[in-house]
Order: sequence, then C-alpha cells, then structure tokens
Amino acid sequence: MKNNLVKPGERLDDLQNGYYVIQDPEKFCFGMDAVLLSGFARVKKGEKVLDMCTGTGIVPILLRAKTEGRDFTGLEIQESCAEMAGRSVSYNGLEEEIRIVQGDVKEAAELFGAASFHVVTCNPPYMIGQHGLQNPDQPKAIARHEILCTLEDVVSRAARVLDDRGRFYMVHRPFRLVEIMNILTKYKLEPKRMQLVYPYVDREPNMVLIEALKGGNSRITVEPPLIVYEKPGVYTKSILELYGKV
Amino acid sequence: MKNNLVKPGERLDDLQNGYYVIQDPEKFCFGMDAVLLSGFARVKKGEKVLDMCTGTGIVPILLRAKTEGRDFTGLEIQESCAEMAGRSVSYNGLEEEIRIVQGDVKEAAELFGAASFHVVTCNPPYMIGQHGLQNPDQPKAIARHEILCTLEDVVSRAARVLDDRGRFYMVHRPFRLVEIMNILTKYKLEPKRMQLVYPYVDREPNMVLIEALKGGNSRITVEPPLIVYEKPGVYTKSILELYGKV
Repeated sequence: MKNNLVKPGERLDDLQNGYYVIQDPEKFCFGMDAVLLSGFARVKKGEKVLDMCTGTGIVPILLRAKTEGRDFTGLEIQESCAEMAGRSVSYNGLEEEIRIVQGDVKEAAELFGAASFHVVTCNPPYMIGQHGLQNPDQPKAIARHEILCTLEDVVSRAARVLDDRGRFYMVHRPFRLVEIMNILTKYKLEPKRMQLVYPYVDREPNMVLIEALKGGNSRITVEPPLIVYEKPGVYTKSILELYGKV
Repeated sequence: MKNNLVKPGERLDDLQNGYYVIQDPEKFCFGMDAVLLSGFARVKKGEKVLDMCTGTGIVPILLRAKTEGRDFTGLEIQESCAEMAGRSVSYNGLEEEIRIVQGDVKEAAELFGAASFHVVTCNPPYMIGQHGLQNPDQPKAIARHEILCTLEDVVSRAARVLDDRGRFYMVHRPFRLVEIMNILTKYKLEPKRMQLVYPYVDREPNMVLIEALKGGNSRITVEPPLIVYEKPGVYTKSILELYGKV
C-alpha cells in the first residue's frame, strides 16, 4: 500500500497538482522558496535536470509536474532526508523519472560526470558560517547554514556538471547578492535573469531568484518585482498562480 | 542681472526647492535619473562631495538643497556643458558652495588628489560602445554612450578620490548590474545598498541605484521597490516626495 511509505511522525502534503510530498516536521520542511524556484526555472522538453541540496525532493517533483523535462536527479547529503525523498518519489510513482541520490554536492562531478546536465537547480543553505547556530548536526541547521557546503561549492560544482550553454537556477537571500554575482561570473555562469521577491510592495525583498547561463555574455534582465502579499494573509495573483490556485 | 546668465535658446527650469537650473534642449537635459540619484545619495553634515559627469550640474545643486554637505564639486568634460553648469551655480548664488570643473573623469585623481572626497556621485553614460550611434561628437551622444569614459573609468577614479570608508552613489541601467557589481568589488567599492526603479509595479525595472562603501564588507541591503507610476501620467507618492510635491 502507498500509505505504508509514510512513517509515524511524518505527514503527507498535497501539492495541488496531482502529486504529494512526505515531510517530517522535526526536520526541514520545504518553504515558499522551493515553490518560487520551481516556478522561476525553465526546463525544456527532453532536458536532463539536477537539483542540488534537494531535501524533501520538492523541486524535482514540482518541475516534473510543470515541465517536459525528461530526467530528474535530486542530490541530498543527509541520509534520512534522501531516504524520505525517495519514498516521496515512489509514492507518486515517479521512479522512472526522478532519481534521488544520497551524496555530497562537492562530489557531484565524480558522481554524475562533467557536462552531464542541461539544467541545475539549487535551494542552498542561506546563512554564512556558524553565526547563531546551536546544533550544527541537526537536519534543520544543515539545511539553513553553510555547514556541509558553501555557496562557492554549489556554484563551482554546478558549473562542472552543466553542459556548455546549460542553465543554473538558484534561490537565495538578497543580502548575499554581490557575492552571488561574483562567484557565478568567476565560474563562467553568467547571470542572465533575476527576480526579487518582496513580501509586500513597500518592503525590502527577502528572496532573489537567479538564472545563469554557462558561457553567456554579460547582460542581465531584471524581471518585474514578485510581490507575495496584497495584505496580511492575502496572496497576490502571481503567488496564487504559482501555487496553481487560479 | 541674473537673467543675463541665461543665453538665447536655453531655458531656466524651476527645481521647486528654491533653486533653478539652466538647460539647453539641443544638448542633454537632465532626467528623472538625476533626481533619483540625488534622492538616494546620503550626504552628511560637513562632507565634501564630487559629482562626476555632472552635465547641467543638477546633482550638486539638488544635493546642496537637501543635505548639509559642505563643499560640492561637479566635474564635466564637455566645455559648453561645464560653462552652462557654472552659470546655473551663479544664478543660484552658490559660487561659494559648488565649484564646476571642466575636465576628464580619467584625470580626477590628478585634478583633485587621492582620498579627497567623502562622497562621489555619478550619473554616467549608460550605453556600451558605439551601438546605434550616429554622431559620436554630439553632446547628447557623449552623455548617453561610453564615448569619453567607461563604467570602469568612473569606478576606478571614484575609488581613488574617495577617502577610506567614503561612499559612492551611482544610477545606471539594470541590464549592466552584473558588470557594475564586479567592477565595484574589483576596486574595493563594496555595494552596500541597492534600489531598483520600476516604471510600473508589473514592469521590468529601468534604473538601478547603488551605494558602495570603500573598504566595506560583503553584505548588501536591497531596498523596497521604487515604483514610478500608479497609472499612466500619475506619479506614486514616493516620486512626488522626491520632487518635493507632497
């Protein structure tokens, strides 16, 4: 039975698109950032996609639902997360299309080979170092802080496993934007498209979405602002569309 | 008579703050970008300010009106523009506070000395190279295209004439954002604050405002979006405030 795939303490979330994801509230649950990343990324028919730091596997499941990509891989370093993501894939009957691999981002080129993907996506840990960190061995801490991999690890390995003219998509925090731009260009992943996500129209943005092109020239398109709330508790039309509710 | 300072073919624009600027419609007239730059820049009491590519002198005149800066210099390479800007300064009786210098941005350190300003502002030519350019010797072309100075000329010279911890403010086009970030960090002017200017809430931004700190660490604050129009012909409250009309 499919429901045997969900263990005690875990919950099953309906993604409203025919698919489900298993989550453990004790570990890291996916947030709006993963949904925004999946909405921002463009995957064309037949393309091969790697999602680094896949966590629950939410990004490959959403991309499988909304694109005609052919082959999705989710890479996750934490064994218990990778195991749970694998059960989500099975629950959805997507074993032929999504593969979850337990492994280290820093080993991505050795695991998959150089130039082996058309698209790489990543929702990496946002926070630098150990600042404010209580339990560096906790799944939540590993998902949020650069404990097991840094921004430069992610970008440098994405550059290696991407095909020439391959595309890299990332969601991150705006306060690291300069570092993000500098590291991307250092590894010849040229930022080509960016969108800032503002919680309200009169607030500072709390997320940034970036598309970079391997070997691209220097010219970026900044998209219209993505505003999350009309007013407290009321999403904008853009967000409702992303969640498939309009 | 003050009105003798305005020559035939020129016009006198009321800045709505007690000051005026002389402009020649045959040359380059200042736009909203100069007003936005002056609104974005922070000049503290007693600070010494250089405006590169000053054109009509609009930025030092606006900064003199709204800040307690002590000493403003406008640097302009085109002789006829510099001469006209000097007459605007005289018209406003600001000869003691604003000095217009005719000279090349590339010679800024030789003209003024290294580490001689607390703040540098610049509304530089936006367009790269000669693309679409008919008359490279025309004042309008020189103001819009990188004919006489490039982005790297502006940034490298700003870095030289700024004091340690001095601040650089620039308005530019978003499509060059990656290049802007990379050149600023190359010259140790760390971007610390950025605001994107969107003509409408659902459009791509057409201007970006940047503050960089000489010797700053890597962490940027992205400001709330600056939206120009509520609807066609109707400015938002933020813009009306900048123009001193609310």
